[in-house]
Amino acid sequence: MNKVFPIITSLLFASLPSAVIAAESPIAIAIHGGAGTIQKSRFTPEKEKAYRAKLKEAVEAGYSVLEKGGSSIDAVTTSINILENSPFFNAGKGAVYTHNEIHEMDSSIMYGKNRQAGAVAGVKHIKNPINLARLVMEESIHVMLSGEGAEKFAKNKGVELVDNKIFNTEHRYKSLLKVKAKMKKAKLENKDHQAAHNSLDVEYKVGTVGAVALDIHGDITSGTSTGGMTAKRFGRIGDAPIIGAGTFADNNSCAVSATGHGEYFIRYNVAADICARVQYQGKTIEQAGNEVIHNVLMPVGGTGGVIIIDTKGNMSLPFNTKGMYRATKSNTTATYVGIFKDD
Amino acid sequence: MNKVFPIITSLLFASLPSAVIAAESPIAIAIHGGAGTIQKSRFTPEKEKAYRAKLKEAVEAGYSVLEKGGSSIDAVTTSINILENSPFFNAGKGAVYTHNEIHEMDSSIMYGKNRQAGAVAGVKHIKNPINLARLVMEESIHVMLSGEGAEKFAKNKGVELVDNKIFNTEHRYKSLLKVKAKMKKAKLENKDHQAAHNSLDVEYKVGTVGAVALDIHGDITSGTSTGGMTAKRFGRIGDAPIIGAGTFADNNSCAVSATGHGEYFIRYNVAADICARVQYQGKTIEQAGNEVIHNVLMPVGGTGGVIIIDTKGNMSLPFNTKGMYRATKSNTTATYVGIFKDD
Repeated sequence: MNKVFPIITSLLFASLPSAVIAAESPIAIAIHGGAGTIQKSRFTPEKEKAYRAKLKEAVEAGYSVLEKGGSSIDAVTTSINILENSPFFNAGKGAVYTHNEIHEMDSSIMYGKNRQAGAVAGVKHIKNPINLARLVMEESIHVMLSGEGAEKFAKNKGVELVDNKIFNTEHRYKSLLKVKAKMKKAKLENKDHQAAHNSLDVEYKVGTVGAVALDIHGDITSGTSTGGMTAKRFGRIGDAPIIGAGTFADNNSCAVSATGHGEYFIRYNVAADICARVQYQGKTIEQAGNEVIHNVLMPVGGTGGVIIIDTKGNMSLPFNTKGMYRATKSNTTATYVGIFKDD
Repeated sequence: MNKVFPIITSLLFASLPSAVIAAESPIAIAIHGGAGTIQKSRFTPEKEKAYRAKLKEAVEAGYSVLEKGGSSIDAVTTSINILENSPFFNAGKGAVYTHNEIHEMDSSIMYGKNRQAGAVAGVKHIKNPINLARLVMEESIHVMLSGEGAEKFAKNKGVELVDNKIFNTEHRYKSLLKVKAKMKKAKLENKDHQAAHNSLDVEYKVGTVGAVALDIHGDITSGTSTGGMTAKRFGRIGDAPIIGAGTFADNNSCAVSATGHGEYFIRYNVAADICARVQYQGKTIEQAGNEVIHNVLMPVGGTGGVIIIDTKGNMSLPFNTKGMYRATKSNTTATYVGIFKDD
């Protein structure tokens, strides 16, 4: 509405309580907790229930921020913090292990109103990397900080540095051992590192959390946070902290957060390409998202998915994997939680 | 020609010597050595002559690779190596100093034929970072490696690690001292770090080298290499190693290498956005480049420029600064070297 009647909208803003404005302007949020070989057969009823409950909690907490008139930035970080603090997802507490048996995390955030952005790569001692990415966006002259430098910046800003061990979890450590064993076996079969890595199940190459939101002011934000790829080496940076690849937001088109095999998402500039198709070709977010996920990425082996939102509150959640942890809520739709393809 | 008559072209390829093919298929290369406050008044005639000679040498070396039927990847790295090995430009030997008085370099490369890409960020002991970016593209399962991890990968691949001191130059050290003094003065005037940094001349925020090339096979490549921003801190990563921001190449649209105030080039996804306007809006590379450099970046303060090439051999070199070190050569145009706006 505020696009068609800007003057009337501003009068409403000036004279009506925020609850009334909320009824007038769309607000919406979508979250994801990673895409991959997520099949019903791998879940006990209890495990499935616990994942669904956590996704519901995260999306509703972000929605609650929007409902109170809060910014899409606050909504996105609120939802992502809940996912980061859960051991279920590959970010924060649930971050996977690197080849060296530690945790290195990446995150980024972008605000569609002014295209401000912040990103951190390879941080080891930050409990909630998305909050540090936000701090880079809001209080640094730079967009992207990495490694110890990013943590020095955090310390200067009063952010607590935590022990890398707090991210240890038994199930992720088992995954690392499995990956190392598979890589070793493949190498014994004379496969080179590349071929050995290609033989790994997709689940070891993906896993990320993210959120996109539209606030009452018509501004959209995207945020992404991850522990990266299991057994990653050499200071590998994936798509999650790359503006344009894993995260992108522009009020003129849409906001996108991605999850998948990061190398493909960087090469195909996935998040920004979806927004470019919306802006330059007049496609809907559903059309643009489906094209990139199914027609561009799928044929080259780029597995994963995205969540997309526009300034009208439309949302789309395409993925080309067996499943994607996801949830949405808006002022016109009830909480939706999905895990499997047919959810 | 190979677009209109693909069958005849392949017949030609099979039956004619490469010198004849070269006359049939366009080949072209463009290079840059950074954009900034490059004004005639700051040059002695000798200095100007030396810069022009180095640009000529670099572009002609890359062109010579193309002329012999070499790939656009080889042409791009050949030209960039010459610029990296010169103290004139902010990359390799001429890399600026960080706040800690060392040199941290970033580089990336992308091949338009298959959209393979490689990037390194924050390397300190690599003589020619573009060659390491290429090695990541060709021999790693990852696209982007950073810091010590990237150098460990280099060492595993037999790349010599050099002392960071080899990148020391007197003129860059003087620049660092100037920047530090200016920042100190600004802070004494109660400016915060952000405001202090904003008060610096643009020349301390830019400086990069890059090349884009089209080979006889119709494939384009883009590469970029830089020492980053003078007095940068906190492991700052600029646009040069970011696929989509500083470097992008896709045979379906164009290849772009950027130089400028990196934070803006990341937020505006500059290299990929130019290609998206070409591919989705049917714009020429000249139209798309001018729009992004002059209409998108200039109004928000994003200073810099780009070099662009397409698969027909068209080249465009827009910039919104006082000057940009640049040169081109193609099978239909003689060597062109430019420094100032009216060159």
